[in-house]
Amino acid sequence: MRQSTLFGRTLREAPAEAQTPGHRLMLRAAIARPLAAGLYTWLPLGFRVAKKVEQIIREEQDRIGAQEMEMPVLTPAETWKETGRWDALEPITFRTADHNGREFMVSYTHEEFVHLHAKQELQSYRQLPQIVYHFQSKGRDEARPRAGLLRAREFVMKDAYSFDADQTGLEKSYAAEHGAYERTFARMGLDAISVESDTGAMGGDVAHEFQVLTEAGEDRIAICPNCDYKANLEKASRSTDTYIAGATELPRPSEIATPSTTTIEALEASLKQPTTAFLKTLLLRDAKGTLVAVVLPGDRDINEAKLRKVLGTSEVKFANDGDFASAGSVPGFIGPIGLRVRTLVDRSVDGRPYIAGANKRDTHLRNVVKGRDFQGEQVDAHDVREGDLCPRCTVGKLSIKRGVEVGNIFAYGTYYSDKMNATFVAEDGTAKPFFGGSYGIGVGRAVQTIMETHHDEKGIVWPPQVAPFQAHLIALPVNDEDVRSKAEKLVDELERARVEVLYDDRDESAGVKFADADLIGIPLRLTVSARNLKQSQVEVKSRSAAAMEMVPLAFAAEKIAGIVRSWPR
Amino acid sequence: MRQSTLFGRTLREAPAEAQTPGHRLMLRAAIARPLAAGLYTWLPLGFRVAKKVEQIIREEQDRIGAQEMEMPVLTPAETWKETGRWDALEPITFRTADHNGREFMVSYTHEEFVHLHAKQELQSYRQLPQIVYHFQSKGRDEARPRAGLLRAREFVMKDAYSFDADQTGLEKSYAAEHGAYERTFARMGLDAISVESDTGAMGGDVAHEFQVLTEAGEDRIAICPNCDYKANLEKASRSTDTYIAGATELPRPSEIATPSTTTIEALEASLKQPTTAFLKTLLLRDAKGTLVAVVLPGDRDINEAKLRKVLGTSEVKFANDGDFASAGSVPGFIGPIGLRVRTLVDRSVDGRPYIAGANKRDTHLRNVVKGRDFQGEQVDAHDVREGDLCPRCTVGKLSIKRGVEVGNIFAYGTYYSDKMNATFVAEDGTAKPFFGGSYGIGVGRAVQTIMETHHDEKGIVWPPQVAPFQAHLIALPVNDEDVRSKAEKLVDELERARVEVLYDDRDESAGVKFADADLIGIPLRLTVSARNLKQSQVEVKSRSAAAMEMVPLAFAAEKIAGIVRSWPR
Repeated sequence: MRQSTLFGRTLREAPAEAQTPGHRLMLRAAIARPLAAGLYTWLPLGFRVAKKVEQIIREEQDRIGAQEMEMPVLTPAETWKETGRWDALEPITFRTADHNGREFMVSYTHEEFVHLHAKQELQSYRQLPQIVYHFQSKGRDEARPRAGLLRAREFVMKDAYSFDADQTGLEKSYAAEHGAYERTFARMGLDAISVESDTGAMGGDVAHEFQVLTEAGEDRIAICPNCDYKANLEKASRSTDTYIAGATELPRPSEIATPSTTTIEALEASLKQPTTAFLKTLLLRDAKGTLVAVVLPGDRDINEAKLRKVLGTSEVKFANDGDFASAGSVPGFIGPIGLRVRTLVDRSVDGRPYIAGANKRDTHLRNVVKGRDFQGEQVDAHDVREGDLCPRCTVGKLSIKRGVEVGNIFAYGTYYSDKMNATFVAEDGTAKPFFGGSYGIGVGRAVQTIMETHHDEKGIVWPPQVAPFQAHLIALPVNDEDVRSKAEKLVDELERARVEVLYDDRDESAGVKFADADLIGIPLRLTVSARNLKQSQVEVKSRSAAAMEMVPLAFAAEKIAGIVRSWPR
Repeated sequence: MRQSTLFGRTLREAPAEAQTPGHRLMLRAAIARPLAAGLYTWLPLGFRVAKKVEQIIREEQDRIGAQEMEMPVLTPAETWKETGRWDALEPITFRTADHNGREFMVSYTHEEFVHLHAKQELQSYRQLPQIVYHFQSKGRDEARPRAGLLRAREFVMKDAYSFDADQTGLEKSYAAEHGAYERTFARMGLDAISVESDTGAMGGDVAHEFQVLTEAGEDRIAICPNCDYKANLEKASRSTDTYIAGATELPRPSEIATPSTTTIEALEASLKQPTTAFLKTLLLRDAKGTLVAVVLPGDRDINEAKLRKVLGTSEVKFANDGDFASAGSVPGFIGPIGLRVRTLVDRSVDGRPYIAGANKRDTHLRNVVKGRDFQGEQVDAHDVREGDLCPRCTVGKLSIKRGVEVGNIFAYGTYYSDKMNATFVAEDGTAKPFFGGSYGIGVGRAVQTIMETHHDEKGIVWPPQVAPFQAHLIALPVNDEDVRSKAEKLVDELERARVEVLYDDRDESAGVKFADADLIGIPLRLTVSARNLKQSQVEVKSRSAAAMEMVPLAFAAEKIAGIVRSWPR
């Protein structure tokens, strides 16, 4: 490929809107370009990377016996309605209708449709287990598309679906996909860790995410340095100390005058007590507008995803002043005693006497004790933080890292087959529901995550197995007849040896060409220059190392092909 | 691949809605399945065919130097509005909007967007010529999806776009794509002919379609047996005889009483004149509601596509009774003399005296002569028919065949670059518009057209280069330990020799297995049976020939791999 006619122009500066190192490099190196917020075109360089990433994913799916197929982008509403997801997914999806008014969703995922197919194609237990997969464009109406390909509004996902006869089979399929994912990410140069995750809109109980730790990520992951516990904070828990009550009985609650003291911070300052001495009571509304109060220690925050899961709702919002009145309270002075509303008590709240709002203007109570003075459903809805104790080993202190979710796997069992009446004939002749799982990887997000984690100050440093080309041959100067003819001969020899070469035949300075080569980040840089040709040599430099090597021109193709063959695939 | 777990069940009977032989086979052989009207899923067998077709297209695009990229499915309205196609394409497209009300089209084609990219990536004449292409899902809200994949509402199209500095360059790019298309269709086993076509919604003047002649097609193609003229009837013309007026002056028009005689057929019967003696005058409305009259000989029909092109409109409809009044006429008795409306006269109307409506109830006129008695714009808007004279050689009698349009190419020049101000810096330093063309192939339609033209009464007969597998190995019976172990050994040997094998390991009868093999249509059928194993032989049969051959088991893999290697690629 001649760089002079490559469709894609490198940029010296990234556009101001670029948010992360990978986002900046993606734009500068002409990997992809936005057409609109969150909608991207792969330019030829990026397209080549995306196809290599796709091929790695495909090979690992094929290795576990999964069959490739392809379901459409437009998916009919009536099938989504069978599982209730037509409404549930409304806030995050794009919809359309034909001229007869029949509605379709720009596909968000394909569980419903693969179950429709399974009903028709899989009739007997003898056809199980099965895994099918496809690569297909997905639409997500993200309110805030973020950081280029990390959170786009359209992207190609590989989604795989397993069908098993029972839970044991599902667990095997799930483990097979888990293994395939580990190999897949390792092959594309991503150090992805498997973490426990929330099942979100997918249903079911068991789910893992594959997270690549990088500051560019928007997820937060709790990691135990002492055991194998790793979890998204949307799911993470912690071990809590057991409070040992003193021998003497605790005094009853008593009022404290706290005029205009409506926040934990203000109470801390005026009462000279640590935040842990207070109870924080939040009054919230779920997606249907139902009120709920959540009680936490003063030093703890709600984890909204965990709370949504507890409530089985898609959204929680703060209550308004009228809600406080109907709950029997006052904004700024809310507390758990006597509250007329469903009350959830986070498990971080222990048996000690707390200071809490009195549900009365300008007043708090001291000596408020859980169980004795107020009741509530015990839940886990607080945000785990750095230094919390690991819930598994109860010894390690959790650290919190940022991560990009590059893949996720869900074991949802009969969640869809029950709703859609998707059954097969079991060995005993009865109709049984399929046990299913689904397994996703976003191609664009994987490509950008590779850039987020493989670059230096000069540009991208592609892992060889996903690089757009394997060698970048630079002719200097290109208008020197001898340089050009020898460069083109070497390109030809390399291509015959099946080395993928980007040939910089542009009439540009050495400075421009080397800067572009560093920016684009192809693993091997080969320089055919007038100076090197005096010794009949080619300069070979690895993008990931500083050292250069001079190789005799006559052996260059063979040597370079040998290096390329030695790379992992 | 073991057939026992293949995702896709063959059907003995095609569903009643299947409209063509290829449609029936597509459903019976589990190539694809509908999710909704016009929306299809590729099952694994069909997916493999689609990917082979795609790879052939890709290789031929790459051979002419085209670069692969990928533009998104969702495309922003504002860019479509720059060229006026947001409104023009409304009747045939799917639209959506995000939760902020920003509108998008499920992409119909990508001319606008590739021009947006060209503006940014291509700045100098030195970067030209360029061809870029992608495979992407397209949405078309077809009112009548037809015959499975022949006219679907979502399908993957390869669309390529050329950018040149001038008309000469465009003609070269167009010729290169024309050649690529010829090779592409030949390689996938399609006998596609290049025919002149209307440019439709694409703009510009020059366009060709690649048509595969088959009764399953909905297009009609005029073909000259004497010269190389081939044209879609939407564009086709004919040579007309020159009418030689007699020496004597023709009499003036005179009224005939024709009570309740409102059709050409009725006039023919009552006046005992041939249809060619009459003029047919049609009163029509264009998409904006503007009235127009079209005058043709009584034996000729309008070609609606040709008329739409003449009028520059997307739709023509028959006028209503009120329209007749405002045009100064009466339904059933309309004629060209004295009509108060724009009048188009088809070039089939010659200088002879015709019988025409008098624009007066129950009355016609005889001796109505073009030029003398009425005027009008001369147009070509009639439907060419079997036996018409070729417009090119003027000697051959055209035959009309049904065809499927498997590809189309358009040279639109500066149609988009003018509207979008898409320019490059020319050699003389001035900004010049790109000269463009676009080039499409629908993957699904190509696959089904292969089935329409490659089958017999038992099933599909795939051309080897696009077959889902190369060999279909049938074990009979599979529960014979010796049969199964030898069959599996042969599968293994074949796969190591890179032969793609579908292995029928199902516990089914010989009848069922052979019928499925014929239906699925894999080029080579290999039978490992208890009987053949007595002679240590394998039966080898080609799907496209009746003869069978017995091959020693020991040499079978080598022999079969040799056959497969001998096939065209």
